[in-house]
Amino acid sequence: MKVDLNADLGESFGNYTCGADELVIPHISSANVACGFHASDPLVMMKTVKSAKAAGVAVGAHPGYPDLVGFGRRNLNVSTDELKAMVMYQIGALKAFCDANGVKLQHVKPHGAMYNMAAKSEKLSMAIAEAVKEVDGELILLGLAGSIQLEVAKDMGLRVANEVFADRGYQKDGSLVPRTSEGAIIKDETLVVERIIRMVKEGVVESVDGVVVPVKADSICLHGDNEKAALFAKQLNEKLRESGIEITPLSRVVD
Amino acid sequence: MKVDLNADLGESFGNYTCGADELVIPHISSANVACGFHASDPLVMMKTVKSAKAAGVAVGAHPGYPDLVGFGRRNLNVSTDELKAMVMYQIGALKAFCDANGVKLQHVKPHGAMYNMAAKSEKLSMAIAEAVKEVDGELILLGLAGSIQLEVAKDMGLRVANEVFADRGYQKDGSLVPRTSEGAIIKDETLVVERIIRMVKEGVVESVDGVVVPVKADSICLHGDNEKAALFAKQLNEKLRESGIEITPLSRVVD
Amino acid sequence: MKVDLNADLGESFGNYTCGADELVIPHISSANVACGFHASDPLVMMKTVKSAKAAGVAVGAHPGYPDLVGFGRRNLNVSTDELKAMVMYQIGALKAFCDANGVKLQHVKPHGAMYNMAAKSEKLSMAIAEAVKEVDGELILLGLAGSIQLEVAKDMGLRVANEVFADRGYQKDGSLVPRTSEGAIIKDETLVVERIIRMVKEGVVESVDGVVVPVKADSICLHGDNEKAALFAKQLNEKLRESGIEITPLSRVVD
Amino acid sequence: MKVDLNADLGESFGNYTCGADELVIPHISSANVACGFHASDPLVMMKTVKSAKAAGVAVGAHPGYPDLVGFGRRNLNVSTDELKAMVMYQIGALKAFCDANGVKLQHVKPHGAMYNMAAKSEKLSMAIAEAVKEVDGELILLGLAGSIQLEVAKDMGLRVANEVFADRGYQKDGSLVPRTSEGAIIKDETLVVERIIRMVKEGVVESVDGVVVPVKADSICLHGDNEKAALFAKQLNEKLRESGIEITPLSRVVD
Repeated sequence: MKVDLNADLGESFGNYTCGADELVIPHISSANVACGFHASDPLVMMKTVKSAKAAGVAVGAHPGYPDLVGFGRRNLNVSTDELKAMVMYQIGALKAFCDANGVKLQHVKPHGAMYNMAAKSEKLSMAIAEAVKEVDGELILLGLAGSIQLEVAKDMGLRVANEVFADRGYQKDGSLVPRTSEGAIIKDETLVVERIIRMVKEGVVESVDGVVVPVKADSICLHGDNEKAALFAKQLNEKLRESGIEITPLSRVVD
Repeated sequence: MKVDLNADLGESFGNYTCGADELVIPHISSANVACGFHASDPLVMMKTVKSAKAAGVAVGAHPGYPDLVGFGRRNLNVSTDELKAMVMYQIGALKAFCDANGVKLQHVKPHGAMYNMAAKSEKLSMAIAEAVKEVDGELILLGLAGSIQLEVAKDMGLRVANEVFADRGYQKDGSLVPRTSEGAIIKDETLVVERIIRMVKEGVVESVDGVVVPVKADSICLHGDNEKAALFAKQLNEKLRESGIEITPLSRVVD
Repeated sequence: MKVDLNADLGESFGNYTCGADELVIPHISSANVACGFHASDPLVMMKTVKSAKAAGVAVGAHPGYPDLVGFGRRNLNVSTDELKAMVMYQIGALKAFCDANGVKLQHVKPHGAMYNMAAKSEKLSMAIAEAVKEVDGELILLGLAGSIQLEVAKDMGLRVANEVFADRGYQKDGSLVPRTSEGAIIKDETLVVERIIRMVKEGVVESVDGVVVPVKADSICLHGDNEKAALFAKQLNEKLRESGIEITPLSRVVD
Repeated sequence: MKVDLNADLGESFGNYTCGADELVIPHISSANVACGFHASDPLVMMKTVKSAKAAGVAVGAHPGYPDLVGFGRRNLNVSTDELKAMVMYQIGALKAFCDANGVKLQHVKPHGAMYNMAAKSEKLSMAIAEAVKEVDGELILLGLAGSIQLEVAKDMGLRVANEVFADRGYQKDGSLVPRTSEGAIIKDETLVVERIIRMVKEGVVESVDGVVVPVKADSICLHGDNEKAALFAKQLNEKLRESGIEITPLSRVVD
């Protein structure tokens, strides 16, 4: 029984610091590293890959929309050709730092608005999956558990990984409760830990309506914003191990 | 007896078109492809790599300073760490499109102000050479013939290629006549062709003062701006072949 | 009987040239000047304001989304606060060049995706109108004839100007035929001129279905892309004058 | 006897927070507000102008080089035309938010590398002073005390303000001790306060070599980075008042 713990790292930019990377790194198994479009810059990428390597954390590319001021969270109406090209570009940029440090790039996880849009659009999912496959067919695509993004990628022959969210509520169809609705965020940390253990061990989660729904949890998304988030990452890591769940990078979780 | 003909390609950006790429490609053997910092965007890069491949033209990365509005021609006082990281980033970004198209990235040629500054600074030359070597030690570094950039790279174990300029005057120390001085640009196309043939066959060029100076010509830089430039590329290509010089990508010119 | 002829000017950027500004300027009465977000840069703005002034052409700000690579044509899901602030910023930036040249900024016309989205959204229309009004309540808001954008601005006490498109087909509800549908673009230049004269003189246009629909034409949008567009601007200008219509800047057309 | 206390505010950008603006604002009399080139974005500018107004702090534009990742601290080799245009652009952008809030823009202070380069170059100083004067001849140019920047501006008829640095050492020619040399930064806060009071009251400062040199102090530059900086601003403010020095915006300090 094993699972991956992932967090978004390397989101600082020039003079601007963002995230508590050094505090979070010890407690995760995979890092999604920003690639300079929604956050980060070449120097931050170089340092983040080195930090991840030093900590034995697997590295993934975290491509986003070219919208630094919006942090890649605002939907941008790109064409599929543009999307494919911008994902390829960002994967390649990060891969350079991996190559330079003898690190094998493990996965790709779209960021923010790109992640959310792809989870709902077959067309955008295709563009992203093609980009990943054409640059390096061995890369794993990490996306929303059960989403069209993963179906499309799987059909294309890519390895995929289902991501679940530690602190988010689920609906009975397996989708996330929208952030604007009640039950979107679960604040009770004990409950969060219990839910995650159940997801990993039993493959189910209790929806906001009380229905037990199936969910595949290959990787759990953790926040890396601040000290508190890092502390929770530490605790979750410990609790999972205590309950007999191995924490290990994606490449050892998915087939 | 062989030489490479190179030109800067893929400098369009979004809605903005720049350069007569399709007219120039048939007459060169290597393309320096902009990587999105001083020019180009992911979609343009994707198309340019495909075009180069289709024409049998070898592909090189053309990294520049992050100064789109200045086209990478304004000196920017970057640190060596920043320089190294930005070169790695750009090489990787272009490499993604090469990988996706089964093209082997052949070389790296710094652009504009980065090229000029590196040709005069050992410190900057080191940063660039390290970036190239760490990302992929088989890449060739294309730089100003006889410059410190190439010395530094050679010492580091990289393959290097000496670039000469078809239409530029040389000083008796082998350096280029500054653009602001008389004799900087040679407009007589017949003379330009003669000078190039002499550079390739005899390894010398006549300086602006009438002195015959040694110059190593592995690759000749051509303009790709417009129809006229493309026509000259065609003519030069033909004249070189007529005089028994083989035109072939860098990787077959340098050891 | 009078009308304004407008065109988008100053869309060059750094090394990239775009548009045939100098050819178009003599034939229009108002210029929409790009403000550096979707196109242009400070130097281009400075030159464009000087050119417009020299030709007696009124100057308007042409704010767009911060998407240079997409030329402001891709919808970006901005908040109303972000939209308001980015419109204010761009108006101010252009106003500096007007102030420096003793030119009174005449109007504001949103660009591309911002224009299209605002024409359909009351919320976005409000944000734009507030930005215009708060920076300078004397500015005219130029927008799609009959759109919510103009209604909202008028209610707020702003002067508004109805824009019509010379070469676009209209539907029977007065909206434009979508670019993807038949009849979107009218290529017959004689017909285009006739339609415009009718719009100005009679306040009606024949829809793609043959219905005569009312349309208010304060200003006619012309293309400024190339020599052909400039030639048409010249011809239209002449035909309108011949039929007794005065061509004059917006500020003299609207109340 | 009066002096202005200034600090750089509004340097946050999108998702990135920078500076302890709200803590610093109560203790200063003038704010240098970033204009989106080296830091800030339209929304941050809007909020910063509102905050300054609410606190009765005068607003100045803080234009910088277009180098967000380098925070405007890296020298960029711009032409004088480019420099003039980019300063005009940024002044105008900030002025829009001032106009919208009924705030009179008080001054312009170049940022970072632009400030430093201008202090040493007559050519760059001219470009900046022309930009300020042409946009609004009533603006005050705030620059390094005794620098060529202020001489040039004064000759052009602009009002100028001499800026001194609270915690920096001075050389016997009145220039700052370079950051790389001993004595560049003075850490003893009591000494810093004494030095400032002497600058304001006596118009002199003791150089790093023990020489008493004349220095005109119209405005004192304070840091606004963090809680500690804000605390010092508070203390300095109090000490100055206690010693009979009035703290008041630039416009009331300079003639």
